[in-house]
Amino acid sequence: MSSRLIVSAGDPAGIGPEITVRALADPAVRGLGEIAVAGDPDQLSELAARFGVPVPAVEPAGDASAVRPGELSAAGGRAAVAAITRAVELIQQGRYDAIVTAPINKEALRLAGFEWPGHTEMLADLAGARDVRMLLVSGALRVVHVTTHRSLRSAIDGATRDRVLRTIELAGAAGQLLGTEHPRIAVAGLNPHAGEGGLFGDEEIREITPAVEAARVAGFDVSGPWPPDTVFWRASRGDFDVVVAMYHDQGHIPVKLAGFEDGVNVTLGLPFPRTSVDHGTAFDIAGKGVARWDSMIAALRVAARMTGAGRTDAGSSGRAEPE
Amino acid sequence: MSSRLIVSAGDPAGIGPEITVRALADPAVRGLGEIAVAGDPDQLSELAARFGVPVPAVEPAGDASAVRPGELSAAGGRAAVAAITRAVELIQQGRYDAIVTAPINKEALRLAGFEWPGHTEMLADLAGARDVRMLLVSGALRVVHVTTHRSLRSAIDGATRDRVLRTIELAGAAGQLLGTEHPRIAVAGLNPHAGEGGLFGDEEIREITPAVEAARVAGFDVSGPWPPDTVFWRASRGDFDVVVAMYHDQGHIPVKLAGFEDGVNVTLGLPFPRTSVDHGTAFDIAGKGVARWDSMIAALRVAARMTGAGRTDAGSSGRAEPE
Repeated sequence: MSSRLIVSAGDPAGIGPEITVRALADPAVRGLGEIAVAGDPDQLSELAARFGVPVPAVEPAGDASAVRPGELSAAGGRAAVAAITRAVELIQQGRYDAIVTAPINKEALRLAGFEWPGHTEMLADLAGARDVRMLLVSGALRVVHVTTHRSLRSAIDGATRDRVLRTIELAGAAGQLLGTEHPRIAVAGLNPHAGEGGLFGDEEIREITPAVEAARVAGFDVSGPWPPDTVFWRASRGDFDVVVAMYHDQGHIPVKLAGFEDGVNVTLGLPFPRTSVDHGTAFDIAGKGVARWDSMIAALRVAARMTGAGRTDAGSSGRAEPE
Repeated sequence: MSSRLIVSAGDPAGIGPEITVRALADPAVRGLGEIAVAGDPDQLSELAARFGVPVPAVEPAGDASAVRPGELSAAGGRAAVAAITRAVELIQQGRYDAIVTAPINKEALRLAGFEWPGHTEMLADLAGARDVRMLLVSGALRVVHVTTHRSLRSAIDGATRDRVLRTIELAGAAGQLLGTEHPRIAVAGLNPHAGEGGLFGDEEIREITPAVEAARVAGFDVSGPWPPDTVFWRASRGDFDVVVAMYHDQGHIPVKLAGFEDGVNVTLGLPFPRTSVDHGTAFDIAGKGVARWDSMIAALRVAARMTGAGRTDAGSSGRAEPE
């Protein structure tokens, strides 16, 4: 089965459109399937001409004509939202199987009058999903976060039994989509040494351990809560397939240290797979032709893997398909 | 100037005595200076004979005769405390310049009737220090922690302006002892994206930024608060000499991922340098001769560097001495 992927071009003032055009012309994405870009056709054609690469397939969305590279604007925010909205519509119509998102700018969104705090919240809203999680993939590390964009104090309150359990379920499903039939899921503790038996906090005893036990009863291959300072190192060595992190930086610090250049951000819990580059709009270098497109290639690969190409590979290498 | 180092042998039921004996016989520690071990002379001699290495210089302390490898006991806890106490006495008498500690076991300490929650607290108490910090050194990463062994919730409360400022001061002094005249100190935020202007928590605005500004006024080359998920990666690339981490796992996760095998734990704020291996007693492999002594060698090297040998090196390579 071949993947059908739609890329939202992101804020036209950022590096999104240029890394998309260059990634889609890169030999590394050949064979991933049918890939199109939702964005301004004129901007995408101009960029392709400038870099001397073929014009990608385009699903017209948004108007970048009033946007200048590197300049924050309401017009940039509107164009970014138009591309995402169109991409989601096309997936809902059955034309594509997954979305790959180029970076948007939160401030531009605000200037354009939108109130979503970020990309993920916008997609959840457009797709009617209520409970999503962020998965980061970088090299051997795959980390799903119980919470992300909230204060550390409120993240502690958010590490409830129910949220941890749901995160483990989504981590298990993601591990299967990524090609591991029975993923080994490690759950990190919240406190130093995972609380050291209650000495350094009791969230492990009250919330996390009951969630791990419930998930085990439900059939997941899950362990923990492990001391946070070694569980990511162990996962990077291959001891686990997916780690559940309790808060944003607990998961982001090791992923960014392990492979800053090729990180992929995946949203779990939507009705369709969504992957994203793991960097921002980079207004400071936009339009200069110096932005690297490695992360876009990595995001396309993970999306392909989650929607067909990768799973076919897994089958042909003798591994069983996910149930 | 040559260093005079005293090693406390740690819990005799753990791997401390064997890694000490083997490290002191390793060609890698030659030239670091005068090094002796505070521990049970009989156990240290037996281990040296077993591994076919020279018996190290010993400062007799503690009785390991009733202790069996790998078995938790009050006798092990008592011997471990005796070694540390003797080592501190000898430093206070001017016989040695720094202590290097092999691992102890908290449960053994408790069985022996001691109430210190850990090694660092014991040393602070014995040395009469009130305000110490943990520095972890691993490869290019040097991370000083505002707080360590407390719940994450209480660590947030502990990230006060005064504690952060004192941590920056100790980080600056440590950077100098380690050979950098004007260390570039990066301060991590507490919240995701360092709070994103107050959107994800206000500790950066209320506590951390004022501390960074006060330290800058006092002459430190300090910046931040930086987004926690990228500051350690930047430091690992050489952008900073020392990072100030707000809590245990924020600093421990990147250090352990960056170089699990050769981490060194340094206590700052004592009247003398203290370094330690970055692992535990490893009762499961104690006495089997399979424990690696790399971390002990790394701890000896950092102690030597902080007390003379390393600083002489820095001078001879043309760099200025610390002020």
